[in-house]
Amino acid sequence: MLFFENDYGEGAHPAVLAHLTETNMEQLSGYGTDPYCSQAKEKIRKACGCPDGEVYFLVGGTQTNAVVIGSMLKRYEGVVAAQTGHVNIHEAGAIEYTGHKVLTLPQREGKISGTDLKNFLETFYGDETHDHMVFPGMVYISHPTELGTLYSRQELEEISGICRQYKLPLFIDGARLGYGLASSRSDLGLKDLARLADVFYIGGTKVGALCGEAVVFPQKAPAHFGTMVKQQGALLAKGRLLGVQFDALFTDDLYLKISENAIRTAERLQKALEDKGYELYLKSPTNQIFVVLENRRLEELSAQVKFSFWEKQDENHTVVRFATSWATKMEDVEALIELL
Amino acid sequence: MLFFENDYGEGAHPAVLAHLTETNMEQLSGYGTDPYCSQAKEKIRKACGCPDGEVYFLVGGTQTNAVVIGSMLKRYEGVVAAQTGHVNIHEAGAIEYTGHKVLTLPQREGKISGTDLKNFLETFYGDETHDHMVFPGMVYISHPTELGTLYSRQELEEISGICRQYKLPLFIDGARLGYGLASSRSDLGLKDLARLADVFYIGGTKVGALCGEAVVFPQKAPAHFGTMVKQQGALLAKGRLLGVQFDALFTDDLYLKISENAIRTAERLQKALEDKGYELYLKSPTNQIFVVLENRRLEELSAQVKFSFWEKQDENHTVVRFATSWATKMEDVEALIELL
Amino acid sequence: MLFFENDYGEGAHPAVLAHLTETNMEQLSGYGTDPYCSQAKEKIRKACGCPDGEVYFLVGGTQTNAVVIGSMLKRYEGVVAAQTGHVNIHEAGAIEYTGHKVLTLPQREGKISGTDLKNFLETFYGDETHDHMVFPGMVYISHPTELGTLYSRQELEEISGICRQYKLPLFIDGARLGYGLASSRSDLGLKDLARLADVFYIGGTKVGALCGEAVVFPQKAPAHFGTMVKQQGALLAKGRLLGVQFDALFTDDLYLKISENAIRTAERLQKALEDKGYELYLKSPTNQIFVVLENRRLEELSAQVKFSFWEKQDENHTVVRFATSWATKMEDVEALIELL
Amino acid sequence: MLFFENDYGEGAHPAVLAHLTETNMEQLSGYGTDPYCSQAKEKIRKACGCPDGEVYFLVGGTQTNAVVIGSMLKRYEGVVAAQTGHVNIHEAGAIEYTGHKVLTLPQREGKISGTDLKNFLETFYGDETHDHMVFPGMVYISHPTELGTLYSRQELEEISGICRQYKLPLFIDGARLGYGLASSRSDLGLKDLARLADVFYIGGTKVGALCGEAVVFPQKAPAHFGTMVKQQGALLAKGRLLGVQFDALFTDDLYLKISENAIRTAERLQKALEDKGYELYLKSPTNQIFVVLENRRLEELSAQVKFSFWEKQDENHTVVRFATSWATKMEDVEALIELL
Repeated sequence: MLFFENDYGEGAHPAVLAHLTETNMEQLSGYGTDPYCSQAKEKIRKACGCPDGEVYFLVGGTQTNAVVIGSMLKRYEGVVAAQTGHVNIHEAGAIEYTGHKVLTLPQREGKISGTDLKNFLETFYGDETHDHMVFPGMVYISHPTELGTLYSRQELEEISGICRQYKLPLFIDGARLGYGLASSRSDLGLKDLARLADVFYIGGTKVGALCGEAVVFPQKAPAHFGTMVKQQGALLAKGRLLGVQFDALFTDDLYLKISENAIRTAERLQKALEDKGYELYLKSPTNQIFVVLENRRLEELSAQVKFSFWEKQDENHTVVRFATSWATKMEDVEALIELL
Repeated sequence: MLFFENDYGEGAHPAVLAHLTETNMEQLSGYGTDPYCSQAKEKIRKACGCPDGEVYFLVGGTQTNAVVIGSMLKRYEGVVAAQTGHVNIHEAGAIEYTGHKVLTLPQREGKISGTDLKNFLETFYGDETHDHMVFPGMVYISHPTELGTLYSRQELEEISGICRQYKLPLFIDGARLGYGLASSRSDLGLKDLARLADVFYIGGTKVGALCGEAVVFPQKAPAHFGTMVKQQGALLAKGRLLGVQFDALFTDDLYLKISENAIRTAERLQKALEDKGYELYLKSPTNQIFVVLENRRLEELSAQVKFSFWEKQDENHTVVRFATSWATKMEDVEALIELL
Repeated sequence: MLFFENDYGEGAHPAVLAHLTETNMEQLSGYGTDPYCSQAKEKIRKACGCPDGEVYFLVGGTQTNAVVIGSMLKRYEGVVAAQTGHVNIHEAGAIEYTGHKVLTLPQREGKISGTDLKNFLETFYGDETHDHMVFPGMVYISHPTELGTLYSRQELEEISGICRQYKLPLFIDGARLGYGLASSRSDLGLKDLARLADVFYIGGTKVGALCGEAVVFPQKAPAHFGTMVKQQGALLAKGRLLGVQFDALFTDDLYLKISENAIRTAERLQKALEDKGYELYLKSPTNQIFVVLENRRLEELSAQVKFSFWEKQDENHTVVRFATSWATKMEDVEALIELL
Repeated sequence: MLFFENDYGEGAHPAVLAHLTETNMEQLSGYGTDPYCSQAKEKIRKACGCPDGEVYFLVGGTQTNAVVIGSMLKRYEGVVAAQTGHVNIHEAGAIEYTGHKVLTLPQREGKISGTDLKNFLETFYGDETHDHMVFPGMVYISHPTELGTLYSRQELEEISGICRQYKLPLFIDGARLGYGLASSRSDLGLKDLARLADVFYIGGTKVGALCGEAVVFPQKAPAHFGTMVKQQGALLAKGRLLGVQFDALFTDDLYLKISENAIRTAERLQKALEDKGYELYLKSPTNQIFVVLENRRLEELSAQVKFSFWEKQDENHTVVRFATSWATKMEDVEALIELL
């Protein structure tokens, strides 16, 4: 069975696992106070060009979104996000569980626009009754988005500029950040994110780690952030588990290098689909390829390949997703192309 | 430096790590739907003698307490716990963050008594104004407790009986359950817990795993428990990380066997302390040894041994804790005894 | 200054105030256990044709929405509402503050349709990943809606039927219910609501009371509803304040009779606006009249009349709202028409 | 039947009701923006000697406690209160429902001491693991307390001083404040409270109003307090209902004058009980008299007098409470004394 179901199908990158193994019996203090956490944070700060920033390690994506948003919003504020944003749709109400509303903007290919954001904010503050409404308290975007698309530098600068004008922290969900950074169509690096966002996270779960996301506050974390992490049940006793993994991922550019494999294999697959005349749902710059299949074709393919249903297009056609990752073998891609 | 600071100072037991390594590149589906999760659950159900029960894997202790309690309580209910219970003191208000009160009972050596529980419930329901108060909705105990003590079978049966009389689910926090099961002073096994509790968890973080707690509902989990796990940010994309580890821990009784090491080393240490005339804070049946040290002695020892401050006894004396674990070497215990 | 700003500009209807005055020095027990609360509840149950139903009195509209929704939803559920629903827009996130998401449907003139509701539910349950999403747990509509429009009996039966098919409680916000019942275009009475909804409230604040909303559960209230009312700070010590007022409102059909005044005056005003060639924003069947004004005209009128800004139509035109109520004098309407 | 069951058995003081009646048909804008609210606030600021303070009107006591505490605490903070504090016992978990823990101190006659508060704070900050605990974020006391007792000026200054040293806002629950101010044993006035507390409320429900509590921030309310009031469902559309009542209560010292009646009648009753040899549970300085009754006596008395059960003293004796209020007639007190 060929596996293109998602980008978290394997365990950890061998170098990450090796680092876990070689440090396994060291006796280290808990809750992220060990030297591996410290040096991983230092490496990340360096890669992001924010020597005075703060880095925290959390376990997974929904947790990270809920902890960051729940910690940064004031009680009367909500988070602005694309209607298709992960926090709005696929997190079982984790944001609302912290007491906050998700305020939605229209999306195009998973992205919000500066124009829509500006309109939203002007309308809100222009409404005399806005004291009876949820205040926008921060802006959430994902990069890559749910649909694998990327913000351009210009788009991100515009959004960031509006956020700063309205004093709204900008939060970038980077669950698949490596694949964004490695994309040949990206003009944004870690240092750009650190310059333009107030908080973002570098996803590990989908990019080479067993688990773990590195939250970067380029300036400063909220006061007592650690206590709030604990309060949301997100503080690991063996913090080393995350520190050791990110220490490996941020040694010798491993994070970026392994991300490139996902891009290479995805590009090969997308090109082949186009060549074979398949209709792409959108042209993806990263590791998720969305394509329209005839239902009969889908049925047949399912017997030999694992991939994801995305949405129904019409009675006879379905949008499906093939995901590659740091672990995808080019030979599997070729085998898949063979079947298409 | 000798390490007796806590029981989560090392990584995973070698067999656990080996199992992670050997399964690392297998392509598995996510969110706990992989075969390792399934077989680990099956092994746990078998060990607990509850073939129809449900098992879920979560990442850490506070998370598990918050998810279980937050999912089982009705909105107008609180959880009854010892005044010293972890949920009442050391979880940064994680329970209250889910909207629920911790209703406290007096404790003796970290344990609540059936008598106090019964009095509390009779007083509550005897109070005509109890509709204006938080209803007791479940009972939380830890076994071993915060102080390393153990409930006897008779004590647990009494508590369980009262809970059933009042239709209150009984929840046992087993963050250190292995050390309780392995204690020579324990008369309670996994099957007893499954018979007497409505939900309990088998701690992995402190007993051989990198992370992970196995929550056991001997009868049935709350409806849509998985969605609530997600809502609290506690669902791992790579659920395999937990399944593989518990699969190893519940193969060939590994969990119990490695727990025995903690007991052996703790017993040796406690005996030596007594022989040397030290005052024990309490006589511990498990892996945490509490002893009173003169402050000057404490100072000296700190240079060569890592251990924990527990509480001030008087101006000149302090209660400290030495913790052993599955990983503690007897030679380190001997070296510590040498220093005492 | 003519007053058409809203429908809560005066105090209480004189008969309501008289009843408060005549019972003022009676010594009554608290928290809604007094005889006036009892007899008001009995009268309401009778008017609604639900002799076994339960009635509770709360203080205001947002409070009622938050208490009812917060008490009926399970933790993993959200409330389905029109995108323009009061709970979604104008309650400062009161629903999310209770931990629940508002799941929005498209609206037409403030109303949702059975078709959209059905599609939403089918899509939700058809999505394999719906365990990662917020479950629809109840449906909220307002009648009259935010825009003063009314559901027809057929529309409400369709929505109610879908709710029952999916076992979703249907909740009707009746903040302005009297004006809906009194509308000449309404084919729905209290008994219809009691038959088709699982909970609804009869608004007092906007229909003759100083404050107060009567929540009707035609079958049964959630267990321990009173404790949850208290938990949300919504239980009045002097419950009589609400009981006495609803006792007056439900004596000799006062509630309906005084509502008719709002309809008569609104109809007169709407007719006159049409006759004078004004563009109506929508044709209102109740007490809120929405009309498009040239901005210059709006400016002039503001000097002599209080009314509400609704929304900007274009650079030169604005939608405004004139509201009538139980207290509006026909002579004021005539004076307003004079000015138009 | 003589009525000494509580201090909220009647409606409003006649002057309050008269003011509601005379202003009833005035057309006023909503949500507390009317002139009666403004002038009531001004009168209260003056009475409290805080011309730059902010005053808000809320409906009831539990609501006020939940809104004030929920608005002032940061997410990781709890409120410090006496173990017997209303917020800890009798509010159905309203504080925890906002996500915050009540951190309890020992009490003596319903009061906390500066010494205990200081110890608590020193212990908290002295504990190296306090990042894993709920931070004390404000201090709650009631004056009079649940037991009708009063803080002396010296006691309050000590508590206030410690709060300021630790930058903890001090909140005084004044549900029965009038009876505290009017007590012959009080050495604290409104201006003292405004000087020593950061927020307090002047209870109306139990002191002459139909409903309503005036929250006073002697310096400044939290930013966007009004939106949070709305978010907790506590904002009245007809804000006038509260403004008009407090306008009456703070005209010509009415609030204080009517409170004196409760004290006079309570003093007469307490003196008579002592003279007749009854055992007082405590010597009350305000309007709640606690006395020990033989159970047989209690039984007999219940046939002719309404009063409250407080607690069982032993098999044959019970502590009961007789409450007086602004409305209690001296002739009823004499009639009660006759029966004793």
